[in-house]
Amino acid sequence: MSDSFADAPGAATATPDQAGRWRATILTLYPEMFPGPLGQSLSGKAMAEGKWSLDAVNIRDSATTKHRNVDDTPAGGGPGMVMRADVVARALDAAAPGDDPRPRLLMSPRGKPLDQARVRELAVGPGALILCGRFEGVDERVIEARQLEEVSIGDYVLSGGELGAMVLLDAIVRLLPGVMGGAESGTEESFEGGLLEYPHYTRPREWEGRSIPDVLLSGDHAAIARWRRQQSERITAERRPDLLDKS
Amino acid sequence: MSDSFADAPGAATATPDQAGRWRATILTLYPEMFPGPLGQSLSGKAMAEGKWSLDAVNIRDSATTKHRNVDDTPAGGGPGMVMRADVVARALDAAAPGDDPRPRLLMSPRGKPLDQARVRELAVGPGALILCGRFEGVDERVIEARQLEEVSIGDYVLSGGELGAMVLLDAIVRLLPGVMGGAESGTEESFEGGLLEYPHYTRPREWEGRSIPDVLLSGDHAAIARWRRQQSERITAERRPDLLDKS
Repeated sequence: MSDSFADAPGAATATPDQAGRWRATILTLYPEMFPGPLGQSLSGKAMAEGKWSLDAVNIRDSATTKHRNVDDTPAGGGPGMVMRADVVARALDAAAPGDDPRPRLLMSPRGKPLDQARVRELAVGPGALILCGRFEGVDERVIEARQLEEVSIGDYVLSGGELGAMVLLDAIVRLLPGVMGGAESGTEESFEGGLLEYPHYTRPREWEGRSIPDVLLSGDHAAIARWRRQQSERITAERRPDLLDKS
Repeated sequence: MSDSFADAPGAATATPDQAGRWRATILTLYPEMFPGPLGQSLSGKAMAEGKWSLDAVNIRDSATTKHRNVDDTPAGGGPGMVMRADVVARALDAAAPGDDPRPRLLMSPRGKPLDQARVRELAVGPGALILCGRFEGVDERVIEARQLEEVSIGDYVLSGGELGAMVLLDAIVRLLPGVMGGAESGTEESFEGGLLEYPHYTRPREWEGRSIPDVLLSGDHAAIARWRRQQSERITAERRPDLLDKS
C-alpha cells in the first residue's frame, strides 16, 4: 500500500513506512505517556512484531517563544487556557506534510462519537495523525484550516486527549492483520451485527449454586446458536434499545 | 466520610482510607499497566498530593491451579477464552469484603454507556473497585453473584478493560475537590448543561488570514455569553442532535 509514497523523494518520514505498517503519530504535550499501556499486551506484542508503529511528538517543540508557550488565555475571557493555532499548526505540518495520506484526528468531547465502524475504517487505512487536546481546547482556526476530524470516545470529559488516543489505537490495532489469532476473529463480539454480546460461561459447571445453562452443555450447535442470538437480542433490548433503532 | 469504616476492626484495607481519599482498586491481569498515564499530568499530581489512591491487583494471584489459570474455553464452544467465575470472585472478595462501600464496576462493551452524570456520582463517593475484563469476557455468574455494574466507555471493542478503567479514573479524578484550579471549575465544558462546548480562540489575533470573531474582542460580556451559547447550540444541533433530545 505504501510503495508509491515511499518512493516519493523526501517523503520517507511522512508516509506509511516502507514495510506497509499501520503508522500512528501522536501530537501531545505528554509524549512520555506513550506507548504506556499500548506497549504491553496485545498492542505491545503487535508493535514489537512490527505490525504497527507509534511516534509521540511533543507539541512544545514547535513553540517559538523563549518560554516555549503552547497556550494562551481565551479570547473573550473565561476559565482555562487555549492551545495556540500557530503552534499546533507548526507541529501538525512538521509531523505530516500535505501529501501524508493519513487522516488527521483531534481527540475532543465535541467530536463525532467513535464507533466500531469508524475503527474498522481507520484500521484498513495507512495510519493516523492524532492531536491530543489539553486545557480548555484548541484554537478553532487550526481545526478548520487543517481540516481536523474531531473524534470523541464518549460523553464525558477527560483531562486531555492522550487516553482517548490510546483507546482509539487499542481498538484499531487489535483489528490489524495478524494481531488477533484466527480464533478471535472479532466477528462475534459486541457491536458487530448491531447487538451486544451474549453471556459467557466456562468451568466450573457449578459455582456457588449457579449452573451453566443446560443448552450450552447440550452439544446441539443449532440450539446453542439460537440461544446466544436470543440472549444478545434480549440484552441489547434491555440495555441499549438505541442500538436496535439504528439497525 | 470514612471514619465509621476506618474504625471497624480489620476493615482497614477494605474501605476508604482514613484520610478520606478517593480510593480505586483495579483488578487486572496487567497490573504493570498502572498507574501508567494516570501517574502523570493532572491525575498524577493529584495522586502525589494524596487526593486519591490506586491499587492494581493481579487477578492471577487468586488462581489456585498449578499453572495459575484464570480462564477456560467457553461453554457451548466458540472463539477465545472466558475468565473463570471462581477466580474472579476470589480476587473481588479479597480486594473488597462485603462491607466495602465502594461500587463494584466491570469495564465491558455490554455495559451502560458512561456519561458525565455517572462520573460526577462516582466522584462524590468513596472510590471504586474496577474489574478489567480480558479475552472474550467474564463468566456471567460472577457478574450476577457479585452484582457487578457493567460500564462501557463507548461503542467500540478494546483488547481489555484496562484503558477503560484509566479513562473512567481520569474523568473522575479531575472532579475531586482541589484537583482542578478554581479557574477550571468544569462547569463550562462539554456535556454540562447538555451541550457541546463553544469554539475557543486565543492569540494571535490574525493567523493564516483567519481572525478571532469580533464579538470575542468587543469586551461586551453579555454579547460574548450570548454568542457562546448560540455556538454551543449550533454545534450540538449539527453534531449531536441526540443530546438535545435528552434534555
